[in-house]
Amino acid sequence: MFSLDPRLAADTVALGSLSLSRVLLMNDSRFPWLILVPERAGMREIIDLPEGDQAVLMTEIAAASRALQSIAAPDKINVGALGNIVGQLHVHVVARRTGDAAWPGPVWGAGTAVPYEAAAREHTMAALAAALPGLRPAE
Amino acid sequence: MFSLDPRLAADTVALGSLSLSRVLLMNDSRFPWLILVPERAGMREIIDLPEGDQAVLMTEIAAASRALQSIAAPDKINVGALGNIVGQLHVHVVARRTGDAAWPGPVWGAGTAVPYEAAAREHTMAALAAALPGLRPAE
Repeated sequence: MFSLDPRLAADTVALGSLSLSRVLLMNDSRFPWLILVPERAGMREIIDLPEGDQAVLMTEIAAASRALQSIAAPDKINVGALGNIVGQLHVHVVARRTGDAAWPGPVWGAGTAVPYEAAAREHTMAALAAALPGLRPAE
Repeated sequence: MFSLDPRLAADTVALGSLSLSRVLLMNDSRFPWLILVPERAGMREIIDLPEGDQAVLMTEIAAASRALQSIAAPDKINVGALGNIVGQLHVHVVARRTGDAAWPGPVWGAGTAVPYEAAAREHTMAALAAALPGLRPAE
């Protein structure tokens, strides 16, 4: 049975679920940053997923990218599935701006997260939820 | 018309092409590292591709992952589409080992590439080409 890795849970707030993936907002106000976690037990690599789920994951990466574009007008979207530290399969989708806190390097391992203030977090969550068609509310 | 970004060309050797993507081997012997470049002009983001091409890209990411697993027995596959420096859409698929030169951080921006010696490069290219069904030779 799927359960979210506690380290992912600790670093994020849950937005809800799409067809395949739990959608998390990284609690780091430096970057508009979503994490997709396929709700399948025991997955580490994209290729651990059945082919049909791989295809759905791509559509959800695209949906997360469009949602970030609509709320943040980024200069670039970064997509990454690393998992070197947290092995549970998860995909980062990050809105990048020229000159942001890690630019032009990757966000992973770059400096220290700056948690959202409550009002900004609620605003960002509401805007992202509205921009993600088919999102079911977090339990 | 598609043409490979000269910075990607300079850092890699061409293995060939799959249905959608040019397949490049990063010339860095520290990490078995493939780069997929969809052979479509003017693409920067995955979501710039038509949906059908996005689906094919996922199957090619999976094929590259399996090829790296078969030649390198990695502890983790890292997949990333960043493009903060080279804007042409390209997807990194990297075989990672616990304790490798960047572990557990990302490979991007980590240290300096160590080019392959000629014999090792030829061996790696031949093994990867044999592990990538449907690969057409580089022109």
